[in-house]
Amino acid sequence: MSSDDDPNLDDLDQPPHLNDQAFNLVNQALGASEDLRIEPAPVKGAGCILDCGVEAEGSLAAGLALAEICLSGMAELSIVPGEVAGAHWPHLFVTTDQPVEACLLSQYAGWQISVGKYFAMGSGPMRAAAGREELFAKLGYREAATAVVGVLESGTLPDLKVVRWIAEKCRVAPDRVGLLVAPTSSIAGNLQVVARSVETAMHKLFEVGFDVSEVVSACGVAPISPVAADDLNGIGRTNDAILYGARVTLWIDGDDQQIASLGPKVPASASPAYGEPFLSIFEQAGRDFYKIDPLLFSPAEVVFQNVATGRVQRFGRVNHAVLERSFGL
Amino acid sequence: MSSDDDPNLDDLDQPPHLNDQAFNLVNQALGASEDLRIEPAPVKGAGCILDCGVEAEGSLAAGLALAEICLSGMAELSIVPGEVAGAHWPHLFVTTDQPVEACLLSQYAGWQISVGKYFAMGSGPMRAAAGREELFAKLGYREAATAVVGVLESGTLPDLKVVRWIAEKCRVAPDRVGLLVAPTSSIAGNLQVVARSVETAMHKLFEVGFDVSEVVSACGVAPISPVAADDLNGIGRTNDAILYGARVTLWIDGDDQQIASLGPKVPASASPAYGEPFLSIFEQAGRDFYKIDPLLFSPAEVVFQNVATGRVQRFGRVNHAVLERSFGL
Amino acid sequence: MSSDDDPNLDDLDQPPHLNDQAFNLVNQALGASEDLRIEPAPVKGAGCILDCGVEAEGSLAAGLALAEICLSGMAELSIVPGEVAGAHWPHLFVTTDQPVEACLLSQYAGWQISVGKYFAMGSGPMRAAAGREELFAKLGYREAATAVVGVLESGTLPDLKVVRWIAEKCRVAPDRVGLLVAPTSSIAGNLQVVARSVETAMHKLFEVGFDVSEVVSACGVAPISPVAADDLNGIGRTNDAILYGARVTLWIDGDDQQIASLGPKVPASASPAYGEPFLSIFEQAGRDFYKIDPLLFSPAEVVFQNVATGRVQRFGRVNHAVLERSFGL
Repeated sequence: MSSDDDPNLDDLDQPPHLNDQAFNLVNQALGASEDLRIEPAPVKGAGCILDCGVEAEGSLAAGLALAEICLSGMAELSIVPGEVAGAHWPHLFVTTDQPVEACLLSQYAGWQISVGKYFAMGSGPMRAAAGREELFAKLGYREAATAVVGVLESGTLPDLKVVRWIAEKCRVAPDRVGLLVAPTSSIAGNLQVVARSVETAMHKLFEVGFDVSEVVSACGVAPISPVAADDLNGIGRTNDAILYGARVTLWIDGDDQQIASLGPKVPASASPAYGEPFLSIFEQAGRDFYKIDPLLFSPAEVVFQNVATGRVQRFGRVNHAVLERSFGL
Repeated sequence: MSSDDDPNLDDLDQPPHLNDQAFNLVNQALGASEDLRIEPAPVKGAGCILDCGVEAEGSLAAGLALAEICLSGMAELSIVPGEVAGAHWPHLFVTTDQPVEACLLSQYAGWQISVGKYFAMGSGPMRAAAGREELFAKLGYREAATAVVGVLESGTLPDLKVVRWIAEKCRVAPDRVGLLVAPTSSIAGNLQVVARSVETAMHKLFEVGFDVSEVVSACGVAPISPVAADDLNGIGRTNDAILYGARVTLWIDGDDQQIASLGPKVPASASPAYGEPFLSIFEQAGRDFYKIDPLLFSPAEVVFQNVATGRVQRFGRVNHAVLERSFGL
Repeated sequence: MSSDDDPNLDDLDQPPHLNDQAFNLVNQALGASEDLRIEPAPVKGAGCILDCGVEAEGSLAAGLALAEICLSGMAELSIVPGEVAGAHWPHLFVTTDQPVEACLLSQYAGWQISVGKYFAMGSGPMRAAAGREELFAKLGYREAATAVVGVLESGTLPDLKVVRWIAEKCRVAPDRVGLLVAPTSSIAGNLQVVARSVETAMHKLFEVGFDVSEVVSACGVAPISPVAADDLNGIGRTNDAILYGARVTLWIDGDDQQIASLGPKVPASASPAYGEPFLSIFEQAGRDFYKIDPLLFSPAEVVFQNVATGRVQRFGRVNHAVLERSFGL
């Protein structure tokens, strides 16, 4: 799937607008690092590496910056008040008119960065330069970047070896790689996951064969899960925030039949694995992620508004009972 | 009512601050046209004509830009999460400290642009330069503009004849007319209507004889109706979003008695026509808009807070059942 | 407790970043004074004095500016839609990653400005320059300011005598004192009080002996109480908005035991005085503020999220019945 294996993908190279937009945001975050409680974690020979939650404490604002960078700046984000099981609970609201670019080509955490003992889930627009995921071939997109930006969900800061590995796959020099790093169980790392309400809907649509180019705009909201003590619990809670708490509206310019046939598959409740907190599902799968139904990963509720026909179709519901257990309310 | 008929209105001419403010926003929208999915629709001899939903696809952001321009930039707008009949439903929230200028002198769609076969509902600050509506005489306001900005709710782009007609009424050259055009059944055209929660309350107050200068600040929220397949259905749904879904708070510096006597007339439920989706009302009126009670057009709920006396008075309620039918939930 | 009494506090002097940040915001407010409906109230020999609600009418935007200045710009503020007792009701939402600096060192109205017959509750970062409250010694913070900014909750504009008194305590020249003034029963003065949801939680924590440095981030929401006819009623309603309507989330990096033991004391309902509208409590206390339980002053609901352990603890509930009576719904 990598560029060197597939020369005819070069025809698809785009100007690096996702990476360029994200780079501007990285510079802004760097300039505000003290307020954001994030710290440069210099790696000799690499570009800007920002610790947003490994050693650094991070903040809500750092989480918003992480999420915005993940989305290449192509979505509006805000923390809004809300409720979970009757308790006051802040939510993360996201709106975008570029759901494919913002969510699939940038934000989706689809690139596993595995270099020696180092592991991180990689997201952000560097993926569009690396183009290693099937998704890029299918969507016919690939950036010819001069500098790349990525977000690493990991409890460990990358070293030069990791940066070089990413640089090579993205066809840029190591000092042209900007990375922001935060574990799931940090304030910022936690928040950037629950900013994925629309992204998980888009990815699920992609997986079930929906023509995602028909999604012209989207918005979504999810509860900001409580930061967990460790990453395993963090993964549990952030997943629960999406699976049982995220509510998404998609504006479609397309076909009602496609929505009627594929829509019911979109909410998390369509998966046989649905119903328990994510960590229980994980235990039942023998602690093996790859044994969990991959189609579980999607929002609790999805409303389709077809702008071509005016028809509205709604699938799924929020599940406060599971959220209550997961969040320890 | 036109300027040439009524020379003593000239005494009221104001510097064109509404049109100037809106013009800055038009330039911003033009600069962001690609992101907003709007397109310049050049008319030789005219100023900036922007297609926001006729041929262009438009976007949520274009709808916000349209609404902001309609309001001459004198209100804050945001898309916020909410619910309709238990379903996740984005809403449009508006706040203003200049409700008369923003809503009545600018946003109200009170100018019917009817030139040959061309028809559009005209709103935005160009109305304050044309001053053709009784409202401007009663409120004693009229702008001496050098350039004007208007929003046309229409499925057809204007030609030079239309632009010249508007220019003449506004006493400016045709190349000093900026117009943004979107049909009701487009993403942006739909959104700019549901941004009229406060405006419809203000206009209803004006119609029932309330001294609108006493309204010092206002906020309102309405569900963003699903974009309809055609304009007739679009008019139905956007009206329902306001009549059955809009909730408004007005800060009054005035008299409790005036509120007590006129307040009950303000919510849509005060009209005998209230109770069915707007399209049914339209059918029952023999498809003749002018047979529909004009006092129907107002928000579902209005809360008056009198800052002079501290008294709160509330009239009307949201009607989820009608919204559910209208939106096809 | 004053600086001149306690010379070794001088060791704690910090660069005046709170006052500097607030000063920039004062200049912005001054530049937008017409839109904000606020007015310079020049006092010969003093710095910038802004009337935000004494003679001036003020506005929602002026209230937001007042609140932001109180917080030294270290929090995000927004008006959001909500409900009180089923009625549409705008709320004020605040988010901060610097709750100690924003709320305790700046926003808390802890400095009584009492000069001759003049009286005002003083808040904002000038307090950190004056350092007259025990809180500054306990938190080890004191600014060496060159210019100071304060907010006065008062129905009377200060004269030069008042400004000189403040200047002296802050160790600056009188022409380096910027003050914004609004009574509780004005649009802006009312709004800046209900922006204190997080602040009242932070102050209550401080009072019950919680290590406030463990609060790393916070958000809160409260209904914007209806502006009252006079300040006594204004104090009643704004207090009710907090005591019975404010909902706060605190992100703690600390100890669950401390939360478990002190948390139950935090919501207003922990006070024996809780249960009636504030004005009734005031009457029962013989109209003597100092006979009211000082621990009453805190939000209705507080949710603690311990980021160190993942544990969530919730205390208190919103009380719509009292809000309904207080707001006259």
